[in-house]
Amino acid sequence: MSTATTTLGLKCRECGTEYKDAPQHVCGNDFAPLEVAYDYDRVKKLMTRDALAKRPFNMWRYGELLPESEPVSGFFTGGTPLVHAKNLGKQLGIARLYLKFDGVCGPSLSFKDRVVAVSIARAKRFGFTTVGCASTGNLANAVAAQAAQAGLKAVILIPKDLEPAKVANTQVYGATLIKIDGHYDDVNRLCAEIANDTKIGIVNVNLRPYYAEGSKSMGFEIAEQLGWRAPDNLVTCMAGGSLINKLSKAFNELDKIGLMLSEVKTKFFGAQAAGCNPITEAIKRGSDLIKPVKAPKTIARSIAIGNPADGYSASRLCLDSGGGGDDVTDPEIVDAMKLLARTEGLFTETAGGVTVGTFLKLVKAGKINKAETTVLCITGQGLKTLDPLLIPGILPDAPIIKPSLSEYRKLAI
Amino acid sequence: MSTATTTLGLKCRECGTEYKDAPQHVCGNDFAPLEVAYDYDRVKKLMTRDALAKRPFNMWRYGELLPESEPVSGFFTGGTPLVHAKNLGKQLGIARLYLKFDGVCGPSLSFKDRVVAVSIARAKRFGFTTVGCASTGNLANAVAAQAAQAGLKAVILIPKDLEPAKVANTQVYGATLIKIDGHYDDVNRLCAEIANDTKIGIVNVNLRPYYAEGSKSMGFEIAEQLGWRAPDNLVTCMAGGSLINKLSKAFNELDKIGLMLSEVKTKFFGAQAAGCNPITEAIKRGSDLIKPVKAPKTIARSIAIGNPADGYSASRLCLDSGGGGDDVTDPEIVDAMKLLARTEGLFTETAGGVTVGTFLKLVKAGKINKAETTVLCITGQGLKTLDPLLIPGILPDAPIIKPSLSEYRKLAI
Repeated sequence: MSTATTTLGLKCRECGTEYKDAPQHVCGNDFAPLEVAYDYDRVKKLMTRDALAKRPFNMWRYGELLPESEPVSGFFTGGTPLVHAKNLGKQLGIARLYLKFDGVCGPSLSFKDRVVAVSIARAKRFGFTTVGCASTGNLANAVAAQAAQAGLKAVILIPKDLEPAKVANTQVYGATLIKIDGHYDDVNRLCAEIANDTKIGIVNVNLRPYYAEGSKSMGFEIAEQLGWRAPDNLVTCMAGGSLINKLSKAFNELDKIGLMLSEVKTKFFGAQAAGCNPITEAIKRGSDLIKPVKAPKTIARSIAIGNPADGYSASRLCLDSGGGGDDVTDPEIVDAMKLLARTEGLFTETAGGVTVGTFLKLVKAGKINKAETTVLCITGQGLKTLDPLLIPGILPDAPIIKPSLSEYRKLAI
Repeated sequence: MSTATTTLGLKCRECGTEYKDAPQHVCGNDFAPLEVAYDYDRVKKLMTRDALAKRPFNMWRYGELLPESEPVSGFFTGGTPLVHAKNLGKQLGIARLYLKFDGVCGPSLSFKDRVVAVSIARAKRFGFTTVGCASTGNLANAVAAQAAQAGLKAVILIPKDLEPAKVANTQVYGATLIKIDGHYDDVNRLCAEIANDTKIGIVNVNLRPYYAEGSKSMGFEIAEQLGWRAPDNLVTCMAGGSLINKLSKAFNELDKIGLMLSEVKTKFFGAQAAGCNPITEAIKRGSDLIKPVKAPKTIARSIAIGNPADGYSASRLCLDSGGGGDDVTDPEIVDAMKLLARTEGLFTETAGGVTVGTFLKLVKAGKINKAETTVLCITGQGLKTLDPLLIPGILPDAPIIKPSLSEYRKLAI
């Protein structure tokens, strides 16, 4: 497994112009996004089922279909469980309901470790000594942790109102943190300017083509865990819209290199918070025309991106695949977090509550065929967003008693 | 793999009296602890290296050496990374320094998921419909999460001053939580009375012989990850003293069934907080006589057990193996948490800070041979104990700026 053997530089998604590998993310002709190109014939020869059987179960096993195959950080990233959600499935009458649980994705407990692992390897190859990002929290954690692993400096820009857990979980790794008086879109715009101007590898700006490819590893794992099959339905939360596109790309690539045992015809369903729903608002209109949300307002801050970079392609994917999308309110998000914990023993952050809550809404509306296989992508860990659970009334008051059996008996447990 | 084929009921650790499997933890003759007995000849035939190669990398791969081999919860528990700590090792001049990182152990992000997975499977076999525990936090999270997975009720008793993250991370799973006005030892005593009196499977009381065996899976994994070798030195935090004993047992059992490629001669080093150090206080005196700590006072609440059930055997193990032990203050714990995050990109809870801090002290004192292989056991996740990091001055104040390049430039990053 070596990078040079399977990747072919960058290619414009629209006009197809080819570029050599560089920290560049848009085409010089039409300003469309650049993507990593692969030599699929070569991938097909190297990434056989026999070869895979000998590799550890983490994201690096799919190295031929990633821009980097040798980690300099995120050494154990990926390889997260696909949980058969028997209890929740039983309540809903869905026998084949699965949860892809990146709440235990190391090192920093979200799927963002996947994209960061790839982009930091590439940053090192390009000679950057500092990496950075615009983040709603999870990416900040991942860049900080993995920059420490790779021996790089990290400069991280976040909206000033992020959850304390995500702030501490960035600073503890020694990263330089800058809080921006604005929404994520302001932070992102500033990062684009910084990337033009300085010698920093901003993982989700000038390293974006490499970065985004890391998300595919979640799709590769889902397909392999389902026995080299794509699910009939996939529901995931959407922020910038990149993840859902890359999950689709992952299934298609596995099909292209001959690893899939059945046809890929996944229906993709996007989930957003009602307080920041630019993509699902378009999907519900049957359109791919995204109207940016100027002032996102939701407890699901990690996906509160008002002007999603990949909103167009995400909405097209959901519409064209026969899927769809919907959004949920803050109380529905919290209820879904609690439901998931109580039925499946998995604690997700608010973004996962968005996925589960939207899924419940789609089931109720008859949009998910209960006889089919459905995968929900749970992208982060509940301990990162405790705040909504700490509001009085959300969890029961626990009684305080003296350590005596008689006091215990009075509780009549 | 089936339980019935390799386990032989319970056996008194002192007098050797044999018992049939039952929710019972002390011998009727001498009140000594009961342990699970195995048919090692049979284990040897079933748990070969070839057989292991075909099994997924999680704790259940070692089913023949556990009291239960078929999970009813904790389906993906264990299989955590052993990280080669190259950056920290370089600072200290130790080439072969490894971190066993259970901060990503699922479902609930600590090594307690290992013991709970085994005890809940056993609770179900015994017909319990409710499980419970006395807990300093991590066990509460694990029992709550896995009871939900297994479809059992959970009743959990904790000291009333536990961290909010651990409280919310217990209640979210639907467990009944009772706060006790007292220290952990008061909680534990009450649980012992409850276990005598009611129909609850208290995992760390009447199910203790089964429960404790789950810890061995961490040792099995370490040995396998080192290429079927035990480390020369192992440092771990100690609460009740059970884990360190079971790690030793794990290495010895792998040796007994012929899987080890070199002799087991691990030196065990125990780590505690200075504010609750009953075991290391004894070790430092060269004694196994534990003087209980009546009022533990440390930020490492998850290991603040003043009267450790296995303190005698833990201190004997450290002394007899040629290892030792030490304890660290609260500021040393926080410094160690930060050091681990900044060098290895791994965020541990306070208990892991105790392990790392004590290790640094042992290195400084010349008690760790730098040419040897050393494993540090990091038993839980940093997001569970954020409080000490949120104290002003511990992490830097992040600047807040407007989203403009000129404001960014003024920071002179």
